[in-house]
Amino acid sequence: MTDATILDELFSTIASRKDGDPEKSYTAKLFARGRGKIAQKLGEEAVESVIEVMKGDKEKLAEESADLLYHLLVAWAEVGVKPADVWAVIEGRMNQSGHDEKRARKGGA
Amino acid sequence: MTDATILDELFSTIASRKDGDPEKSYTAKLFARGRGKIAQKLGEEAVESVIEVMKGDKEKLAEESADLLYHLLVAWAEVGVKPADVWAVIEGRMNQSGHDEKRARKGGA
Amino acid sequence: MTDATILDELFSTIASRKDGDPEKSYTAKLFARGRGKIAQKLGEEAVESVIEVMKGDKEKLAEESADLLYHLLVAWAEVGVKPADVWAVIEGRMNQSGHDEKRARKGGA
Amino acid sequence: MTDATILDELFSTIASRKDGDPEKSYTAKLFARGRGKIAQKLGEEAVESVIEVMKGDKEKLAEESADLLYHLLVAWAEVGVKPADVWAVIEGRMNQSGHDEKRARKGGA
Repeated sequence: MTDATILDELFSTIASRKDGDPEKSYTAKLFARGRGKIAQKLGEEAVESVIEVMKGDKEKLAEESADLLYHLLVAWAEVGVKPADVWAVIEGRMNQSGHDEKRARKGGA
Repeated sequence: MTDATILDELFSTIASRKDGDPEKSYTAKLFARGRGKIAQKLGEEAVESVIEVMKGDKEKLAEESADLLYHLLVAWAEVGVKPADVWAVIEGRMNQSGHDEKRARKGGA
Repeated sequence: MTDATILDELFSTIASRKDGDPEKSYTAKLFARGRGKIAQKLGEEAVESVIEVMKGDKEKLAEESADLLYHLLVAWAEVGVKPADVWAVIEGRMNQSGHDEKRARKGGA
Repeated sequence: MTDATILDELFSTIASRKDGDPEKSYTAKLFARGRGKIAQKLGEEAVESVIEVMKGDKEKLAEESADLLYHLLVAWAEVGVKPADVWAVIEGRMNQSGHDEKRARKGGA
């Protein structure tokens, strides 16, 4: 129950580009530009998703979300987070019963 | 190959809270506060992920990513995007061959 | 004591471009692309400033801050906020005495 | 023509709190929590401004902009940027003639 097949697959592809040719792959180019650029792209794609949420545009939100998820997975590969690490956090929180939901989340959220 | 089990499951739980009691569920409370608050939380969690990418803290990035994904799924449920819509976008891009990767992404990215 | 000369001056220039030729002015082009694009640019420039704060790069933070302020002023002109409105909010908070500082800010901040 | 009186004044107040008592001052507390927290607050306030731009709420945008500017100035003090450094960047760009406006901004903007 902890797999997320399409994202796990995308992550594998991304991770395999870490030492790839920046001329041939957008992903390899991002890794070559470094952590600051990866974090920036993650933030920028999140901003675009926020705008589409406010606009209520389903199709564009799906597309921007795909961009956001792609760049989030690049960030995981950059820092050394594995998808399974994140699924484990999510699963742990879901195993909390409903009325504990709020406390299960971090303080202030 | 298009399922993302843990996120699909989390999305179902979130969607089922849409008309829930804001007193009993953090998710129901978020929906009750409206689209602006949902978009704001999505943006804020993205900022926290950006910070953890810059810090390079694996454990905190996994936790902040779980928060980010949770709020992204709330935004999908709010706007009417289904997880399968996003997986389809991602899968379509992955089916592009490697050297087309860049063109497969939206202009300028 | 409520003027902010350089920003007031920049705002006047920006506001004067609101119906300008998008071919001749970046500012006029931004207004022509609409509120969603203006909000997006504001968010993206903020992300870039956040990255430079984390990097601690003085020179780049000064440059990104100039970009951020420029796009914030475009957003004000778009929505109908005048610089004096914002200076009044800031001045009102500064007139609070030091030990009231926290309460003077909005809840939770 | 390079002063921005109210912001220069606010910056002086902020800078004077850098070694202040975190119990007595919100600003001193922010400095004590460190660069990551300062960058996070800057990003979060920007997100709130983005939301108010999309909503088109003048009064709230003025208030959120005041919050954003306050946290931007805290970031400047943290990193070692002086307001005059930023005014100089803005003034330099304004001195470009109108049809050079676009080139005067950084690439891609």
